[in-house]
Amino acid sequence: MENTASITTSQVITPAELLEHWQGHRRVTRRVIEAFPEDAFFNHSIGGMRTFSVLVMELLAIGVPGLREIVEGKREVFNENLKHDNKKETFLKLWDETTEGINTYWAQLKPERFQENVTLFGEYEGTVWSQIFYFIENEIHHRGQGYVYLRSLGIEPPLFYVRN
Amino acid sequence: MENTASITTSQVITPAELLEHWQGHRRVTRRVIEAFPEDAFFNHSIGGMRTFSVLVMELLAIGVPGLREIVEGKREVFNENLKHDNKKETFLKLWDETTEGINTYWAQLKPERFQENVTLFGEYEGTVWSQIFYFIENEIHHRGQGYVYLRSLGIEPPLFYVRN
Repeated sequence: MENTASITTSQVITPAELLEHWQGHRRVTRRVIEAFPEDAFFNHSIGGMRTFSVLVMELLAIGVPGLREIVEGKREVFNENLKHDNKKETFLKLWDETTEGINTYWAQLKPERFQENVTLFGEYEGTVWSQIFYFIENEIHHRGQGYVYLRSLGIEPPLFYVRN
Repeated sequence: MENTASITTSQVITPAELLEHWQGHRRVTRRVIEAFPEDAFFNHSIGGMRTFSVLVMELLAIGVPGLREIVEGKREVFNENLKHDNKKETFLKLWDETTEGINTYWAQLKPERFQENVTLFGEYEGTVWSQIFYFIENEIHHRGQGYVYLRSLGIEPPLFYVRN
């Protein structure tokens, strides 16, 4: 990435590495969506928790809007009630659009901004790095729940450590 | 931390921030262990998955040994079959010892090492940062499973975003 020129080799993690790391996790989550039977994706739940489709709507509501607010500084609305047609295919399409959107906005994120404090969705305060870590870790957290949903359906989830 | 003197403000995340972030997640996981009824911690499972006590043994087998191998370079044995007395209290004690151990070894981890490649437990290759991210994210993943176990028992899990 051209905008990492000021980063030295003593970086813990570079912006380019963090983007690739995030997208790697998103590829795993995409495989979890694919692994769900169509009906279970929209209806299966344990202990009164949200279905995996509802969890995925949360993730879609965070990814591009959250990163766009970091980059552009204009307050975004947190909207996890996506209009959809109860088809997994639609979610996968939205997932792939988010992949592109994240790449696009990331290219506009200056490396010196990661330590800056920002407020997202009018509510959540923290450094840029902590916001992005939250996006990634919230996805891992909910995906871990999806793994249990799949196992309870007798389905082997994708491997956690394969990210390509 | 004294050894972060060479790190500029253009760091995505500093070593000290990453340590605090990890320990923050570990505090959440500790509260998840506490939230389990004694019996369920050792016996409850869904879909043939491991019990939460077994998952916690995995986390204990990774934290200090993994970080120590990064710092000292001596091959560690991955041993997730801890001897224990089927008491949650023992796990909480081991958890707190790991908290101290992580702080101790982290203080010896030089910031320029995060981009270095290492092999852990004779098997897992990657940069130091990616190894540490794996430790943290593997914990989030398994803890997300623990949240479902708790919900399936009718127990409200600790808040994901409270890290103090």
